[in-house]
Amino acid sequence: MLEKLKQEVLEANLALPKYGLVTFTWGNVSGYDKESGLMVIKPSGVDYDQLKAEDLVVLDLDGNIVEGDLKPSSDTPTHRLLYQKFPNIGGVVHTHSPWATSWAQAGKGIPALGTTQADYFYGEIPCTRRMTEEEVTGEYEWETGKVIVETFQAIDPNRIPSVLVHSHAPFNWGKDPNEAVHNAVVVEEVAKMALRAYQINPDTKPMDQYLLDKHYLRKHGANAYYGQDKK
Amino acid sequence: MLEKLKQEVLEANLALPKYGLVTFTWGNVSGYDKESGLMVIKPSGVDYDQLKAEDLVVLDLDGNIVEGDLKPSSDTPTHRLLYQKFPNIGGVVHTHSPWATSWAQAGKGIPALGTTQADYFYGEIPCTRRMTEEEVTGEYEWETGKVIVETFQAIDPNRIPSVLVHSHAPFNWGKDPNEAVHNAVVVEEVAKMALRAYQINPDTKPMDQYLLDKHYLRKHGANAYYGQDKK
Amino acid sequence: MLEKLKQEVLEANLALPKYGLVTFTWGNVSGYDKESGLMVIKPSGVDYDQLKAEDLVVLDLDGNIVEGDLKPSSDTPTHRLLYQKFPNIGGVVHTHSPWATSWAQAGKGIPALGTTQADYFYGEIPCTRRMTEEEVTGEYEWETGKVIVETFQAIDPNRIPSVLVHSHAPFNWGKDPNEAVHNAVVVEEVAKMALRAYQINPDTKPMDQYLLDKHYLRKHGANAYYGQDKK
Amino acid sequence: MLEKLKQEVLEANLALPKYGLVTFTWGNVSGYDKESGLMVIKPSGVDYDQLKAEDLVVLDLDGNIVEGDLKPSSDTPTHRLLYQKFPNIGGVVHTHSPWATSWAQAGKGIPALGTTQADYFYGEIPCTRRMTEEEVTGEYEWETGKVIVETFQAIDPNRIPSVLVHSHAPFNWGKDPNEAVHNAVVVEEVAKMALRAYQINPDTKPMDQYLLDKHYLRKHGANAYYGQDKK
Repeated sequence: MLEKLKQEVLEANLALPKYGLVTFTWGNVSGYDKESGLMVIKPSGVDYDQLKAEDLVVLDLDGNIVEGDLKPSSDTPTHRLLYQKFPNIGGVVHTHSPWATSWAQAGKGIPALGTTQADYFYGEIPCTRRMTEEEVTGEYEWETGKVIVETFQAIDPNRIPSVLVHSHAPFNWGKDPNEAVHNAVVVEEVAKMALRAYQINPDTKPMDQYLLDKHYLRKHGANAYYGQDKK
Repeated sequence: MLEKLKQEVLEANLALPKYGLVTFTWGNVSGYDKESGLMVIKPSGVDYDQLKAEDLVVLDLDGNIVEGDLKPSSDTPTHRLLYQKFPNIGGVVHTHSPWATSWAQAGKGIPALGTTQADYFYGEIPCTRRMTEEEVTGEYEWETGKVIVETFQAIDPNRIPSVLVHSHAPFNWGKDPNEAVHNAVVVEEVAKMALRAYQINPDTKPMDQYLLDKHYLRKHGANAYYGQDKK
Repeated sequence: MLEKLKQEVLEANLALPKYGLVTFTWGNVSGYDKESGLMVIKPSGVDYDQLKAEDLVVLDLDGNIVEGDLKPSSDTPTHRLLYQKFPNIGGVVHTHSPWATSWAQAGKGIPALGTTQADYFYGEIPCTRRMTEEEVTGEYEWETGKVIVETFQAIDPNRIPSVLVHSHAPFNWGKDPNEAVHNAVVVEEVAKMALRAYQINPDTKPMDQYLLDKHYLRKHGANAYYGQDKK
Repeated sequence: MLEKLKQEVLEANLALPKYGLVTFTWGNVSGYDKESGLMVIKPSGVDYDQLKAEDLVVLDLDGNIVEGDLKPSSDTPTHRLLYQKFPNIGGVVHTHSPWATSWAQAGKGIPALGTTQADYFYGEIPCTRRMTEEEVTGEYEWETGKVIVETFQAIDPNRIPSVLVHSHAPFNWGKDPNEAVHNAVVVEEVAKMALRAYQINPDTKPMDQYLLDKHYLRKHGANAYYGQDKK
């Protein structure tokens, strides 16, 4: 069942330690199959170096387990809500990657200071508000998804495919699990460079809007000209 | 004698360079066997890449060597006192891991700024007071243990399994040597992220208590639901 | 055609991930053959671990493709202009290496604070002005080259073989692709050390001019005495 | 000739890239044989991965080459003077290791903030004054040695086996090449941790003198008790 997606989700999970994004089991990747309405996600608390495709858990977006012997990631409800509310995405990645997590702990979004960010994100990567006590003591992981969606009320999640959850860590997404991991790597890089830019020059200003437009649009959309033509 | 514990202590010692926690011989791990009342510890000043199970030293908690040809770690009295005073622990790790040691040198505890810390530590990781001249010129390593215990007068060491010794470095513990190493890795990660969070936003506040409760308790205690059920 | 240069360009491209200068495909190296007036450059958006010599694209300095099935790097016009205007160079490297890019995002040149920089750069590594909307929405990559050349109106590009493009990242050059990569590595090192020096001492002053002279000239020019004599 | 010392010098040179202390050829190690009055040093500008024992150069302390086809390191006069003036040392290491070099560029010594430093250095690692124009334009490398010796007028070089040369980088020494490399590694670690300690707490004070005494003396001198007894 969903063998190709499972393979993609497995590889995306294994990419997390490869890119230095996770310590121990602090991260998880899921993938979503629009046709069947099913998602595949890492089981909770399993080490990456022991993870196999058959360990992955298949669920529907209401949280019913369709296949799998292990408990899914405790963050599954957050993933489910993102697939429900962000209809174009096919992969979600959660990590505690240290630079992005530092911004989340500081409660600050990462401003677009340069073209590295503009090549992937059409502006600032936002940080959610603090969650309320009611949200945290309630259906916590589901509420985490809701506060992310709230943060994107006026932001297009296809153009800003990552968020920092306040006092927690980043969630990232993309058209498939691989692209979501890719975005997780970029967030870590720009989180690092943004702090250092402010340390070099506390008066650093965001990049000009027209430069942001140029770089984002030369890689995305109808007039993109970066990379090779897809045949 | 205590072959299983020796193997665990050996593996935990070898994990220190693997996780980037030690330079040269700057660290040591011990394990404690409650039944026999004996502990196993790394010998002093032996390189990790030459360390073998038969080099490990077995002692009782009064410091009498029961087995082993080499001198035990010079920090042995600190380990002994921790096993005496923190009755639920079965492993102790001392390192000079650079981020945590920087906090120790600054004389500051690591506040709980986010869920990474909350998943393992139920609050701030404290820093001891400076040791007095009398303590340092006396039974120094034993007194180091005493100042740690004093720091935990009002803190449950099972819920805060690490400490920073002022002007020195971290000590960490756990139910066994492996868990103690695990906690040493976490301290290094949160020490790094806490400094960066303050650099991003000097007004960073600790996380909300209810979020700390939520994350700590979803991994620890009767109502934990993270990870797979232990059979 | 230009097989030797292609091999050099290939090796120089592969050196970028080896030295930790690139994430994903964020970088490109070209080489220029003065005799034929042709340059060889990395194709756009191709992964380094799949790059082969036959993927490289050969162009003249007007941008006409002479050989190659793939689209050249989107930054090709910048490379072309540098070869036109800086007549002694034979290699150009563009990366988003994180320390240098942080300085570019901060809009600051890297002052010469020590002999590490002086061994390769005869002074500050400059940062361009911000590009105008007209430049960015026009022939952007060509205009990027023009703003670099403008920055070097009063600077000898043979003695300062790197630049930071504002809100973007470094470009580096040299007598051949290998030397250009070498300079890219040096920029990353001095970018890192300069920020830290200012963090240690905000009143850090640039090195003395006579020390800069000494170190630059013991490695460059007629009276150089560093390294072995070239036979 | 001096085959054993050559082997030690070779291994110590190769340890520099292994410990992350050098980029390219930015470093050199020498060793001194008190009996013959001869020193062995790395040739100038030779890559570490191509360095062989037979490439090493043998000189007397007046700089006369006794054996070797290659030019010795350009820093040879500095090494020579240190062997002349610091009679107990048998190895000298120069690197541009990035953390220590940042302190050198900032013109600041590294205060003793914790026991990591105290285990190897009996106090602050000093930074020289800026060299004068006369010194730099004269016998520069020899004068570098002289300013180091001047810095140690009131400091015992056996107890503080490293120095930061202003606007340049560290020099380190020890009883043999291996110990000198060891000290170079320690300087890099304490340079890193000292900056971070000040970033965590700008009011960080040096460690107490009695703690410095305790740690230095438990590893050095007649009453040392760290490590295994040497037989």
